[in-house]
Amino acid sequence: MAVYTEVPDEALAAFLAAYDIGDLLSYKGIAEGVENTNFFLHTTAGSYILTLYEKRVAEGDLPFFLGLMEHLAANGLACPQPIRNRAGEALGRLCGRPAVIVTFLDGVSVRRPATRHCRALGAALAGLHAAGAGFGIRRPNALSVAAWRPLFAQAEAQADTVAPGLAARTRADLAVLEAGWPQDLPGGVIHADLFTDNVFFIGDAVSGLIDFYFACNDAFAYDLAICLNAWCFEGDGSFNRTKGQAMIAAYQGVRPLEPAEVAALPLLCRGAALRFMLTRLVDWLNVPPGALVKPKDPLEYDRKLAFHRRVADAAEYGWASAG
Amino acid sequence: MAVYTEVPDEALAAFLAAYDIGDLLSYKGIAEGVENTNFFLHTTAGSYILTLYEKRVAEGDLPFFLGLMEHLAANGLACPQPIRNRAGEALGRLCGRPAVIVTFLDGVSVRRPATRHCRALGAALAGLHAAGAGFGIRRPNALSVAAWRPLFAQAEAQADTVAPGLAARTRADLAVLEAGWPQDLPGGVIHADLFTDNVFFIGDAVSGLIDFYFACNDAFAYDLAICLNAWCFEGDGSFNRTKGQAMIAAYQGVRPLEPAEVAALPLLCRGAALRFMLTRLVDWLNVPPGALVKPKDPLEYDRKLAFHRRVADAAEYGWASAG
Repeated sequence: MAVYTEVPDEALAAFLAAYDIGDLLSYKGIAEGVENTNFFLHTTAGSYILTLYEKRVAEGDLPFFLGLMEHLAANGLACPQPIRNRAGEALGRLCGRPAVIVTFLDGVSVRRPATRHCRALGAALAGLHAAGAGFGIRRPNALSVAAWRPLFAQAEAQADTVAPGLAARTRADLAVLEAGWPQDLPGGVIHADLFTDNVFFIGDAVSGLIDFYFACNDAFAYDLAICLNAWCFEGDGSFNRTKGQAMIAAYQGVRPLEPAEVAALPLLCRGAALRFMLTRLVDWLNVPPGALVKPKDPLEYDRKLAFHRRVADAAEYGWASAG
Repeated sequence: MAVYTEVPDEALAAFLAAYDIGDLLSYKGIAEGVENTNFFLHTTAGSYILTLYEKRVAEGDLPFFLGLMEHLAANGLACPQPIRNRAGEALGRLCGRPAVIVTFLDGVSVRRPATRHCRALGAALAGLHAAGAGFGIRRPNALSVAAWRPLFAQAEAQADTVAPGLAARTRADLAVLEAGWPQDLPGGVIHADLFTDNVFFIGDAVSGLIDFYFACNDAFAYDLAICLNAWCFEGDGSFNRTKGQAMIAAYQGVRPLEPAEVAALPLLCRGAALRFMLTRLVDWLNVPPGALVKPKDPLEYDRKLAFHRRVADAAEYGWASAG
């Protein structure tokens, strides 16, 4: 959460001259997004977010991310919509970095979601999966099961310094997940990072989804598994089945899960938890000196994994056959 | 430039419930202000800035700062205006910190001011000095000449590690400034920190002044001296007399300088430069581990001091008799 790139007023003025978004009234660097530099822009035409992509976002992926946001917005999803300049380009360059202007979305992130938020999120997630249909660019999930063992290799030697037994637990999880990871589930474009800070609410309604920089093609139910992990555990580490039930039922109100998805849900949840445990573990063990961003705790997901390992079937997450 | 305090949505909602500023639509931590945590707030009633005061601002000074902003705004100056809650209080508490909501000001800071910006700033500065008249609270300048020797004592032993000869130059400056520092110049409320990032422009016009957290009672011409230092030197270290002339003439268009102020201007400029050199030097030598803020270069002001020592009279800053 930091401004990595300072943008002088003259450079911004020159950049904005290529766009039809009125005259600049104000811009402020905002502490949102861990990977990129974001500015709130206020112009005579409205409010926007200017994003400068820092080195952790691969420039070759930007046409996918920007095209996806345009596609989703055109299909009725409330998400940031890239603004094209007079040359018809959504992607520009500013201060040596790829840069894009998107529409500003109102809404507030909920840090501690209640059941009503989980319900609203379930419906919004299914809406996202429907809105992604027909998008023409594909991006494989670079952080799915095949990526986990190489990720773990970066952290294995030091894992037990973070928590005793973590290395052995992870080796066992990897063996189970690699052997049983479901193929051929219904899929399409998934968000793959729909944590609470990427969902805006106004009152109890979802007002928008943001931060599509992990979006990719994968199983829809895996996206639901990520959300169950991110939204339905309590601060004490327990899974709240009431919240899970609300999320799954609302999802199924838009798109009922197929039997294969229901059967796979426990493994998908376990895999999703392992994916976040592993990326957090690698970041935790590699904090650069002078880092502006505090790393997230990998052990939060180690505790969630302990729950998932004991789950027998999707009912434990709150699944019930659709209405 | 950082968000030092995270504000959960529930805490913000509870805080805002005491205010009549509509329903919250959005809030973003913004990278503005080195000392405090600031959020951009968008509500159904408009746009605001929420400031949480971190430990470098003395809580006892807040009634002065907030009262001053109210007084200045009531007297027609474009500056952030504190919003009082339903109990009539401008100062509240949020996440354990003193907190205030002020009106949002449009405008853009100019990093490399042109002569036209210096002219506009000169008039705005005189307008600020006029608008402060009649404000009932007093706050002595805690960073005036009496404070410089104790400040230097914190850095003297290490000063020559920053630049050869810096300690000796500073001792000589201190002797000259302490012996000759002018008393009894016309005075009142001054901003005392009117660097370019604290002045907003829309087009070529000043749209607002911000960040009154160094404001105090002192000589008006000392405020002008601070601005000549902050706005009228070029990147190569040379003083731009054309810019100085524009600033001083515009200032005098609102409030002509008295002969004693004109005579004192070279010493005031030298003192202002020493004040910023010293505070920067102390910060430079005391960067805490893991600091979020990069310290500013004290040697920028060492170079400005070299210019001021050679100045014979106010004409070298661009002063010409008013009218």
